[in-house]
Amino acid sequence: MSNPNHHVPAIVIGRLPLYLRALTQLSSEGRRVTSSQELSEKLGFSSAQIRKDLSYFGEFGKQGTGYEIEFLEKSLREILQVHHVWEMALVGAGDLGHALANYDGFEARGFRIAAIFDADPQKIGTLMGEWRVQPIEEMRQMLRAQHIHVAIIAVPAAAAQSVADELVEGGVRAILNYAPTTLSVPPRVKVYHIDPVAGLQSMTYYL
Amino acid sequence: MSNPNHHVPAIVIGRLPLYLRALTQLSSEGRRVTSSQELSEKLGFSSAQIRKDLSYFGEFGKQGTGYEIEFLEKSLREILQVHHVWEMALVGAGDLGHALANYDGFEARGFRIAAIFDADPQKIGTLMGEWRVQPIEEMRQMLRAQHIHVAIIAVPAAAAQSVADELVEGGVRAILNYAPTTLSVPPRVKVYHIDPVAGLQSMTYYL
Repeated sequence: MSNPNHHVPAIVIGRLPLYLRALTQLSSEGRRVTSSQELSEKLGFSSAQIRKDLSYFGEFGKQGTGYEIEFLEKSLREILQVHHVWEMALVGAGDLGHALANYDGFEARGFRIAAIFDADPQKIGTLMGEWRVQPIEEMRQMLRAQHIHVAIIAVPAAAAQSVADELVEGGVRAILNYAPTTLSVPPRVKVYHIDPVAGLQSMTYYL
Repeated sequence: MSNPNHHVPAIVIGRLPLYLRALTQLSSEGRRVTSSQELSEKLGFSSAQIRKDLSYFGEFGKQGTGYEIEFLEKSLREILQVHHVWEMALVGAGDLGHALANYDGFEARGFRIAAIFDADPQKIGTLMGEWRVQPIEEMRQMLRAQHIHVAIIAVPAAAAQSVADELVEGGVRAILNYAPTTLSVPPRVKVYHIDPVAGLQSMTYYL
């Protein structure tokens, strides 16, 4: 089921985590069956869109009976490859890094911080939650040794590109970027840009 | 041009800030003209999608000559209503609140933190950047007095719903939610959920 050979548009892949989040919430409320209509109301996409997106990956629902939540949730986890936990590097031990180190939503959804890096000698060696901040000079080697392929950039904009370069050299292929800047990476590397202003602007249209 | 009477799908509105961000970047590089093809390569949406999205709001490009960057940028700012600056309330003076207070990307793109609130007596009255942390008990009244309609929630998940309720009572109609929880708000209020795990999951599909 996961990663079928036919090409799925990136925009569809981008919606799957939202479906998964909604299903996990329904599941936590003790629900067993849902419908594209209910998901539509929760998420704001049309039910036709939801049915079409899911149909890329198989037959999940039956006309009139809807989707079995547990099965669809499990399937989406496999498709997104978060049925196991990815080790991540967190780069940046400032305020944002602290907030991310304390974020308790990673592990249940497929991710765990394996190491935290910073360039600031004042921060290196200090404890942040359960992690001791490592010098960024050692990052590339540690990424390779531990086969870490996912990273979060939580450094100032001016430092973000050089951090991204180091991550790519270390074998990272997926970067969650909090720095307010566009990163240049090879085509094989994915970047997801956390942009609070884009979120705000998508709401002010309606005000 | 802004807010035309015909209905524009929310998914289209959600892409406009990304077009605007790309245009601002091109503009900062001294560029004057772009094309749906170039925007497509930058953003990962098809050029047909981009042309269709923009066509909801008028005629921005000419066959063969592309889009005039400055004009399209200005038009998108007006459509998204960020040609003036929105005052925002930031709720939560923890690590994430500190990071947001120091974020220097708001004002150039239409937003400014007007006040910071927290419930913790240890934090109330302390300085955070240029702001003094205000008691959350005074938030509702201050929001109404200052006509603040936009807010950021940067509190733990357990406190987020009660904060959202207070914001809504204070007249807020757009909430950027960093807490890892779904908020229940009246239909007139927009919520944009910053979900780092959804971003990560949209990349692990490809690994």
